[in-house]
Amino acid sequence: MADPAPASGRLRARLYSIVFHADDPLGKAFDVALIFAIVASVVVVMLESVASVQARIAGGLRIAEWVFTILFTIEYLLRLRLVERKRDYALSFFGIVDLLSVLPTYISLFVAGAQALLVVRILRVLRIFRVLKLAHYVNEAESLGRALAASKRKILVFIFVVLTIVTVMGSMMYVIEGGENGFTSIPQSVYWAVVTLSTVGFGDIYPVTPLGKALASVIIMMGYGIIAVPTGIVTVELNREREHEEAARRHEECPRCGLGEHDADARFCKRCGTSIMRATPEASGETAPESGARVAAPSSA
Amino acid sequence: MADPAPASGRLRARLYSIVFHADDPLGKAFDVALIFAIVASVVVVMLESVASVQARIAGGLRIAEWVFTILFTIEYLLRLRLVERKRDYALSFFGIVDLLSVLPTYISLFVAGAQALLVVRILRVLRIFRVLKLAHYVNEAESLGRALAASKRKILVFIFVVLTIVTVMGSMMYVIEGGENGFTSIPQSVYWAVVTLSTVGFGDIYPVTPLGKALASVIIMMGYGIIAVPTGIVTVELNREREHEEAARRHEECPRCGLGEHDADARFCKRCGTSIMRATPEASGETAPESGARVAAPSSA
Amino acid sequence: MADPAPASGRLRARLYSIVFHADDPLGKAFDVALIFAIVASVVVVMLESVASVQARIAGGLRIAEWVFTILFTIEYLLRLRLVERKRDYALSFFGIVDLLSVLPTYISLFVAGAQALLVVRILRVLRIFRVLKLAHYVNEAESLGRALAASKRKILVFIFVVLTIVTVMGSMMYVIEGGENGFTSIPQSVYWAVVTLSTVGFGDIYPVTPLGKALASVIIMMGYGIIAVPTGIVTVELNREREHEEAARRHEECPRCGLGEHDADARFCKRCGTSIMRATPEASGETAPESGARVAAPSSA
Amino acid sequence: MADPAPASGRLRARLYSIVFHADDPLGKAFDVALIFAIVASVVVVMLESVASVQARIAGGLRIAEWVFTILFTIEYLLRLRLVERKRDYALSFFGIVDLLSVLPTYISLFVAGAQALLVVRILRVLRIFRVLKLAHYVNEAESLGRALAASKRKILVFIFVVLTIVTVMGSMMYVIEGGENGFTSIPQSVYWAVVTLSTVGFGDIYPVTPLGKALASVIIMMGYGIIAVPTGIVTVELNREREHEEAARRHEECPRCGLGEHDADARFCKRCGTSIMRATPEASGETAPESGARVAAPSSA
Repeated sequence: MADPAPASGRLRARLYSIVFHADDPLGKAFDVALIFAIVASVVVVMLESVASVQARIAGGLRIAEWVFTILFTIEYLLRLRLVERKRDYALSFFGIVDLLSVLPTYISLFVAGAQALLVVRILRVLRIFRVLKLAHYVNEAESLGRALAASKRKILVFIFVVLTIVTVMGSMMYVIEGGENGFTSIPQSVYWAVVTLSTVGFGDIYPVTPLGKALASVIIMMGYGIIAVPTGIVTVELNREREHEEAARRHEECPRCGLGEHDADARFCKRCGTSIMRATPEASGETAPESGARVAAPSSA
Repeated sequence: MADPAPASGRLRARLYSIVFHADDPLGKAFDVALIFAIVASVVVVMLESVASVQARIAGGLRIAEWVFTILFTIEYLLRLRLVERKRDYALSFFGIVDLLSVLPTYISLFVAGAQALLVVRILRVLRIFRVLKLAHYVNEAESLGRALAASKRKILVFIFVVLTIVTVMGSMMYVIEGGENGFTSIPQSVYWAVVTLSTVGFGDIYPVTPLGKALASVIIMMGYGIIAVPTGIVTVELNREREHEEAARRHEECPRCGLGEHDADARFCKRCGTSIMRATPEASGETAPESGARVAAPSSA
Repeated sequence: MADPAPASGRLRARLYSIVFHADDPLGKAFDVALIFAIVASVVVVMLESVASVQARIAGGLRIAEWVFTILFTIEYLLRLRLVERKRDYALSFFGIVDLLSVLPTYISLFVAGAQALLVVRILRVLRIFRVLKLAHYVNEAESLGRALAASKRKILVFIFVVLTIVTVMGSMMYVIEGGENGFTSIPQSVYWAVVTLSTVGFGDIYPVTPLGKALASVIIMMGYGIIAVPTGIVTVELNREREHEEAARRHEECPRCGLGEHDADARFCKRCGTSIMRATPEASGETAPESGARVAAPSSA
Repeated sequence: MADPAPASGRLRARLYSIVFHADDPLGKAFDVALIFAIVASVVVVMLESVASVQARIAGGLRIAEWVFTILFTIEYLLRLRLVERKRDYALSFFGIVDLLSVLPTYISLFVAGAQALLVVRILRVLRIFRVLKLAHYVNEAESLGRALAASKRKILVFIFVVLTIVTVMGSMMYVIEGGENGFTSIPQSVYWAVVTLSTVGFGDIYPVTPLGKALASVIIMMGYGIIAVPTGIVTVELNREREHEEAARRHEECPRCGLGEHDADARFCKRCGTSIMRATPEASGETAPESGARVAAPSSA
């Protein structure tokens, strides 16, 4: 009791490391436990909505729900206590998700029959992303994300073209088929065009007249080409990503002195002058670099 | 009143800049306002077709429609007034779309119950493309368009093969299943084959006999391969596009003197003689080794 | 009448050129007329199967059918007369298709109600491929065909994996769902698995039990990955095709003397010795060739 | 009878070669016969489940089933007898599949009505993979497998994102549509979201309310982008595989002395010094220019 403040300071630093860091052993255990708790609590929320399950084990589900709610509340308060900028955390995306994960259960104590409100707890699933963010999966997610971000403009143009097609085609089907065949309004027909062009095809609405079927066939043939576009865009971007990764890896280590992290446009190791292009063949399976090494070799003779 | 003509001339030039140019500040505002008006007017046309909405706010929709019609009419007359070649504009794609966007509303004053005619106004959605044409999205659209145009012949061959498959397969299903199972005629069966091969699968018609189901399975397995072809074509073309873009960008600016727009096959800046290949490694991550070769070559001289 | 044989020989050669060559002007007209006749006759066969159309214009359709049948018969006999190896033609793919295109109509004169037989005439659609074969579209078709042929083995492995998955998954669904939910037998359940895995999803059969729905979700998630495989295979092969085409084009013409058609691995024009690699940058947008040209340039100094 | 043990040893080695090797002529015949037996027995299991077939040829099917069961039992015992490590085989994947292929038939003798148990025999289909494993198809399968394995992490991130989307979107649809429109519980709604996002679209459940249809359209538009991701991942990995294969093939044989299997980064044949890069242009159509550079370099010496 001679030095309580530093001890609490050390405890606090320890707790911070456990809660916020994935490389801390206890922190890793905390993350794994958290993922399990999140998944289990999401399953509980799902099961609560199933009438037959609810009828049998309503009590068990309620107890489980309260256990998870209290655990998540403690976690939320702990995070709020440990972070420096409490306001920033509380208003951050994950801060709001954390709050929405527990709030509905408390409100349900006072407000009865708030089914829609309780569903909000399903957002707990988003909390898994925070744990993944700490883990090494972030690279992969970032790679996918960058690929999508890089082609944002192409995707916007694509979406706009699709929206135009479904609007015009849906309106044509509305005129051709009419309300008696399920095409009761333009929005309804546009919805049908979206479902058809994307090859989902529920079958709740479908053309009945020969002309409608002919136009539907045309829309479907267009869908062939259209579904190819996002795939092409994403593939090209992922390929570019791969090439960049390989190029980056290529410069990682000097083959003679082992120096890594050269500039992206460096051609020789900045410490020992060795060509750092030689590392390429293994990395990418392309023979391009050989020409560099090959020509350089005679010049040194 | 001393110099009315030049003043009107200046006004006209100003108006022309606002209406036809996106880089003019007021012109940009005009474009944004136009897009909002177009989207809002399309929503009005859509809502008019929904019986329940129509019942409640028919008056509001009619007023909104007339406001948009009058605005678009003014815009149309303005464009017609401002352009040099009035005839060319009136007969151009967008000239016709502009006219079709307003005409049905006026006609509906004289001809009652022209529902199909009013739907023509949905073509207003196409007018957004004119605004986009002015903006920087045109590059992206052109890139997609060029990719599709470049593989036009491959796509035609593909479409013809698909049409042959659905014709032959549809006819076989017509013989196998017959009218009692929904395959009432060859065109109907071909329509089913289109819906199936494209993986839309409405479910309004489906095989019932074992032999029909077996053939349907074969068609579906073929669909696997077939849906891959347009995707492959578009991806390859988009990749080619990307390579061209990167090659073009590569030559954009000399790293020393900043001179841009070198010939596609230029190897040294034509003004200052600096190698303009240095920009390559970052751009594509592929040709890096050549730069090594280039530097090595002079060293042997 | 002095020289009848040579005249008939010349006529025969002329006819041969018209019927078999696309570059002959009259031959081109013959091809276009043939395509129109084929498409029209296929439309007639289709319309004949539509009860409502048949009821109204049965007479017109019958006359049209006989006109086409007689025309195609004349064409068939002409081809048989003109070719050297009559037996080879008669037993070739197109020879059989030509015969099957006219035979059913003649047989229907003697055998009544041979509906299934009349459908055989739909095979006329295949005859269009012969015309295309003469045109320049054959390159595109061959390119697509080669891409598919090159990945034949990968596709076979893929199809076998898919068949295994649908067999095992279909059997599991048969046990889980049972006959009362539409999964009446293993073949039926396998058919459902094919329809689901391919994302067609007719909806004629669908899981009803929670366990069945869970397993269906797993199958669908597998379908995501599986549908990606043929697309990936075809894309990679089409890309390889493109690279080969570009490489071939690269060697097409010597930039100095204009000599074309060098060997695929030729590095210098065999007539004048100019490096024929210089043509590459424009062709592929890759800068690789520069290194060759670049290094060569100093050597000539 | 003087030397029975060696004779039995020779017989055993012969049998081992037939059963376990594909390159032995008799072994090949054994493999082909085995594949036919497996496929036939799987067809028998399937047909047994079809009520109408079962009613007619129940006796024939039972006999066929017992013939296959006894054949497969002999094969199983033979394998068990021939292998060195009997325990390892019995507990291996194929050892268990072999046992499960015959066991249910014997059990059905004692336990009546074990329909679910008999379905287990469908796993016989997996035994074909063992035969394929011996054949040359293993390369293709490995290539596909490696491509999938290489992008395992990206695929895991992708699956997790998809699961999150269907959970959140499914819950929203549950709140919006409610039980009366088929969205009876969150798991049910999540199942609908899986069926929709993947573009399967059975149509057993579909949105009815305008808001539900609007959200469904959003989910479907997301599905466009999402279905593109696995395709992109697999395509990029297959492309990488192709490049590696080409790079490997490139080094396969020296064009002068025929020496194969050079190191991946070898530039000259290690036996005769010939440049082994010459094979490249045909192989990939990409690295052609380097060969130009190589020849040019010595010319400057």
